[in-house]
Amino acid sequence: MDKSYLPNASSTSTWIWYPGDFEIWLSNKMQVRRTEREAVFPPLWQYYSPYPLVTFQTEVDIPEPDEVKIYSEGSFQLLLDDIQIYGQPKSILIPSGKHKISFKVFNQEVLPAIYIDGKYIKSDATWIVTNEDKLWIDEAGRAQQSGTPWLPVGSWNFDSPEHKPSEFRLATEPWNAKSTEKVNGSELVDFGKETFGYIKIHGLKGKGKLALYYGESREEALDSAKCETLDYLHFDGNQSETYTHDKSKAFRYVQVQADATVLYDSISMLYEYLPLEYRGAFKSSDDLLNEIWDVSAYTMHLTTREFFIDGIKRDRWIWSGDAHQSYLMNYYLFYDSPSVERTLLALRGKEPVTAHINIIMDYSLYWFVGIYDYYLYTGDTKFIETFYPRMKTLMEFCLGRRNKNGFLEPLEGDWVFIDWADGLPKTGEVSFEQMLLARSLEAMAVSAKIAGASEDEKQYQQLAKDLKEQLFDVFWDKNENVMKHQRIDGEVQDIVTRYANMFGIFFNYFDEEQKQSVKNKVLLNDDILEITTPYMRFYELEALCAMGEQEFVLDEIRDYWGGMLREGATSFWEKYDPKQGGKEHLEMYGRPYGKSLCHAWGSSPIYLFGKYYLGVEPTAPGYSEYVIKPNLGGLKWMEGKVPTPNGSVDVYCSTNEIKVKSSEGEGTLIINSQSKPKTNLGTITQVDKNKYQLALEANKEYQIQYKAL
Amino acid sequence: MDKSYLPNASSTSTWIWYPGDFEIWLSNKMQVRRTEREAVFPPLWQYYSPYPLVTFQTEVDIPEPDEVKIYSEGSFQLLLDDIQIYGQPKSILIPSGKHKISFKVFNQEVLPAIYIDGKYIKSDATWIVTNEDKLWIDEAGRAQQSGTPWLPVGSWNFDSPEHKPSEFRLATEPWNAKSTEKVNGSELVDFGKETFGYIKIHGLKGKGKLALYYGESREEALDSAKCETLDYLHFDGNQSETYTHDKSKAFRYVQVQADATVLYDSISMLYEYLPLEYRGAFKSSDDLLNEIWDVSAYTMHLTTREFFIDGIKRDRWIWSGDAHQSYLMNYYLFYDSPSVERTLLALRGKEPVTAHINIIMDYSLYWFVGIYDYYLYTGDTKFIETFYPRMKTLMEFCLGRRNKNGFLEPLEGDWVFIDWADGLPKTGEVSFEQMLLARSLEAMAVSAKIAGASEDEKQYQQLAKDLKEQLFDVFWDKNENVMKHQRIDGEVQDIVTRYANMFGIFFNYFDEEQKQSVKNKVLLNDDILEITTPYMRFYELEALCAMGEQEFVLDEIRDYWGGMLREGATSFWEKYDPKQGGKEHLEMYGRPYGKSLCHAWGSSPIYLFGKYYLGVEPTAPGYSEYVIKPNLGGLKWMEGKVPTPNGSVDVYCSTNEIKVKSSEGEGTLIINSQSKPKTNLGTITQVDKNKYQLALEANKEYQIQYKAL
Repeated sequence: MDKSYLPNASSTSTWIWYPGDFEIWLSNKMQVRRTEREAVFPPLWQYYSPYPLVTFQTEVDIPEPDEVKIYSEGSFQLLLDDIQIYGQPKSILIPSGKHKISFKVFNQEVLPAIYIDGKYIKSDATWIVTNEDKLWIDEAGRAQQSGTPWLPVGSWNFDSPEHKPSEFRLATEPWNAKSTEKVNGSELVDFGKETFGYIKIHGLKGKGKLALYYGESREEALDSAKCETLDYLHFDGNQSETYTHDKSKAFRYVQVQADATVLYDSISMLYEYLPLEYRGAFKSSDDLLNEIWDVSAYTMHLTTREFFIDGIKRDRWIWSGDAHQSYLMNYYLFYDSPSVERTLLALRGKEPVTAHINIIMDYSLYWFVGIYDYYLYTGDTKFIETFYPRMKTLMEFCLGRRNKNGFLEPLEGDWVFIDWADGLPKTGEVSFEQMLLARSLEAMAVSAKIAGASEDEKQYQQLAKDLKEQLFDVFWDKNENVMKHQRIDGEVQDIVTRYANMFGIFFNYFDEEQKQSVKNKVLLNDDILEITTPYMRFYELEALCAMGEQEFVLDEIRDYWGGMLREGATSFWEKYDPKQGGKEHLEMYGRPYGKSLCHAWGSSPIYLFGKYYLGVEPTAPGYSEYVIKPNLGGLKWMEGKVPTPNGSVDVYCSTNEIKVKSSEGEGTLIINSQSKPKTNLGTITQVDKNKYQLALEANKEYQIQYKAL
Repeated sequence: MDKSYLPNASSTSTWIWYPGDFEIWLSNKMQVRRTEREAVFPPLWQYYSPYPLVTFQTEVDIPEPDEVKIYSEGSFQLLLDDIQIYGQPKSILIPSGKHKISFKVFNQEVLPAIYIDGKYIKSDATWIVTNEDKLWIDEAGRAQQSGTPWLPVGSWNFDSPEHKPSEFRLATEPWNAKSTEKVNGSELVDFGKETFGYIKIHGLKGKGKLALYYGESREEALDSAKCETLDYLHFDGNQSETYTHDKSKAFRYVQVQADATVLYDSISMLYEYLPLEYRGAFKSSDDLLNEIWDVSAYTMHLTTREFFIDGIKRDRWIWSGDAHQSYLMNYYLFYDSPSVERTLLALRGKEPVTAHINIIMDYSLYWFVGIYDYYLYTGDTKFIETFYPRMKTLMEFCLGRRNKNGFLEPLEGDWVFIDWADGLPKTGEVSFEQMLLARSLEAMAVSAKIAGASEDEKQYQQLAKDLKEQLFDVFWDKNENVMKHQRIDGEVQDIVTRYANMFGIFFNYFDEEQKQSVKNKVLLNDDILEITTPYMRFYELEALCAMGEQEFVLDEIRDYWGGMLREGATSFWEKYDPKQGGKEHLEMYGRPYGKSLCHAWGSSPIYLFGKYYLGVEPTAPGYSEYVIKPNLGGLKWMEGKVPTPNGSVDVYCSTNEIKVKSSEGEGTLIINSQSKPKTNLGTITQVDKNKYQLALEANKEYQIQYKAL
């Protein structure tokens, strides 16, 4: 813990807190902002809270006295070398030499946080924190302390004293309406595309009522009686001329219905967003696909907010299954680690674990897989080191809910989601859930190793191995060569669905023969229950890509995502059924506008294009090793970028030329070519019939001539 | 859950919340109000938080429509028969018939609470609440719910809409100073006795600084540099003429040091207190004892606040060992159940259990014993039924910290307190801790039965039995006939202390022969380490009383508590050593005014006089059965009251007459008399030499003539 400090111009102070607590506080606030026609609609799962009392600590060794400024969210007690400093000073002079500095901060309303700023001593990620400091003074006045659970602090980007965690806001910018029209005495304002933010009214005068009916569709905004969100405003005549609503909403249209006594000039909005750079890119010879990528990226940006949320109009909640896809898409678009961490922390909450994440069995399991992916894509071990205890308690909860056969089967209060699909059986032992548990146990084994818990590592490895064996023993049909869906009371049911079969492919749980069988008998078999949500389309198309069906998948994408665009989508939807028409597309949950028209899980082309067409994926943590397997899928050419920790992998590919360049890591380019390719750099080796590879070094531009199959 | 409602004039609405959450919120707020010279000094143990999101629910069957007013602390979602009501209405018309009404309330800053007030439908203790309602809407719009953990709501006395939990304040009343004097340019204000509240300044004018130095003693208030609490005020000249400080303090004296530019007429205070009736009473032929009882009652009242706290000047924290004595004293003074429940809940916190209560091993164990006493004195089973799960998890924590011999031995982070006493050994296996654990396991067995957990009951009975056997096997010295103090690495140490020996007496763990031996060889043996805190004096004197040494104990009380009065005490102290003199009485923890001069554990005469002189104690829960064993201890006469659930037991006793009357329950009067007593009612039977008894019925006045031994 001891650190020697040298003044470092590049080091800055930042607000620090108990790790995970800001995320819990912010997610509590955010998720309860869901409204339905002015009723708040909070989540159905448990809310945790920040610790209201925590102790921050650092040890320093400074070459000269340091005048340190103190900013605190909450009242505090300051101890210098275990001696209490009287008052609540705004600054303190720390003498030169070695010191231990502790701040015990109380804040019940928000969360305790501090910002400490001296020449040498600065609050930053090196500080530690505890929620029970156990420091007591004995009868003789001696300080005693043992058994204190210290953790590294949490922080984000609150890098100035004024930029307090409690005052967190997303960024905003003004947007004007694209068009307006009068409809039955109301004004219908169209912002031209799906958006999110705060309505502004300009030139406001008079007193009386004004109603705002929001719509993701024109139909919804015009249906005052049934639109999902609305605001009734009352003006007393003393308001200022420009009014900005204090609650954000998702909409493209808003119908403004004002009393005759209320006048205004125009309506605009403040677009609200998380400022992120599009670090990934994709462009190809097919303009439709390019538009699909653009709209996917916009959908992803709209749903990447305080956290990765499902949809911006309705739930505005954090769902682990939805978030898992956002993590993956993020690695090919923003590559924003804080968003992944915030979301993982908000989902997990704290102790004790009394229910599955989002109360959904599969959603607990995606959480573990998401952490594994995070480690693989970013190489970050600190997250796992810090939060391994929370991983372990959640896994203990899951393992504690296995039945006598060692399988997960829903108990009271467990929701098995899998997918929205009519007639999908979800009771008993479902193979899909066991497969996710096996993968989660593998993620736990990797994490245990990182956390230095070698006994745990062995135990999780063994559990994963046993469960996989049992999964195949019970559910793999050796005659049909497919995985069955369900067992009830010891009887395997004669049902095959796509779920476990497609996950088995990209989890690499099947051998080649099994994969081929599954591809033909399940994935490409129209008799198997169809998938209609973009949610499971994500994995279905991933499985097909993993089987080399890029050309088939591109046609599917053109149909499915292209279909939404033809229906006028400006962001991608929660669910799309090409067989439906008109207002049917807006219905869900028994409500005429229940469907979300901007749903994160609709953005999967971002992930597919990056991973399976540009073909870039890490094979060791944080892109220390990676492969590039370009696959045109029938395109004439494509080019793009996939972000990596300190840069990107850039790929151009046509039918006769490949150009690649990367910022870091050891790469392997895999080329399918009719003849041996030629390269400007390095040595190409043949690995199979029509298959070649080239080792890539960082920061070199490779140009390869080849002949596409 | 279903209830048929009839309008009931006596039934009132009250604010309701998640049980225990108000207590956690309030105790967080209260305990951090400790200051030392303007630095806040929060507790060293973990703070829990209220659940920020909870769902309240009731089911009703009403004969006519009911217009119900809704008051909420926090934004809410209202469901009527699982259908969401739009908006956040201030009232709602519930149609006649059966209905389910749910409010999901979010409040991160304070705690979610509601007050519902209709003709039939009223928020009260019959409602239920959950922190995870698990109510979800499936794809088709159907509500689904299972596995929801419901509990009865918590409430107290917030019986009007305006009287919100978040605005809880103790009562106050204005007190004037008793005298003032000028000392070195300051004014020293004396309120005549120990008190607690808010300083008021009258006739305030001018601008500048004004310092308040508080003192429980004259010496402390005059020692600006070292007094424990102070306030520095700054006035800008625009303040009103009467200033009331917003932070309360404990003091008898305050030194006011004002700039020459700041003028004022006088200083007064707002005395702050919990409004409680003295339902117990004691008066005797000895005026010193009467004064000791009065000062004890005042000390007890000062420390019975939001919760039972230790001392009013310094910690202002809730300590389980101190509170355990407050519970017992409370049964003989206020008989205020809400104060006991609030304190038990604040101490326990919530899940998970990561440390002992107050991080002290003995303090976890007193908590269980305190619940057993609460049940015995009040007969209340609801508390145990509601919070049995929290009892169980704390007990699991304790049992999980036993060593391989099955004994509690301190692990990292465990503080073994026992008592403040120089040279008291606290390491290894201490017999006192094992005895408290055995008693706690007995309390758990009784509680498990009340909670309907019969498997648990059996298990706890067995654990208690085994532990008691082992306690005696290891620590009872069969040669010396005393209990040894400690075993280290398998070696019983040659140390005898009073602690386990005195508890063994009133826990009734010793047989008669053992008790006599312990009395003579330990309790009355000056070679055994002396007890100097009123804390352990409480139990020492109880043990002596239980052995019939009332006369000896009265002399001790006259010396010890009388000694404090002779030193000028107006409330009783944290620690008193008759051998010390002058300012030495004020020192503790290495600080000149570190000692608390108003400490709850100083009030034990209240308990001793009620239980061992008036001799009243319940022998079945809630005084359904009780005994009265009057013991004059050498007094000419005494009289008093001991409160019971619906009244009191009234006792008068002189050397030749006893008068008793009770409001309820089946009583047994035990009379020690040289000759057979005579009674105006009932039949006296002899039970032993010079020992008689009389069965008592409620609400009858018994007058007995007898001849004291």
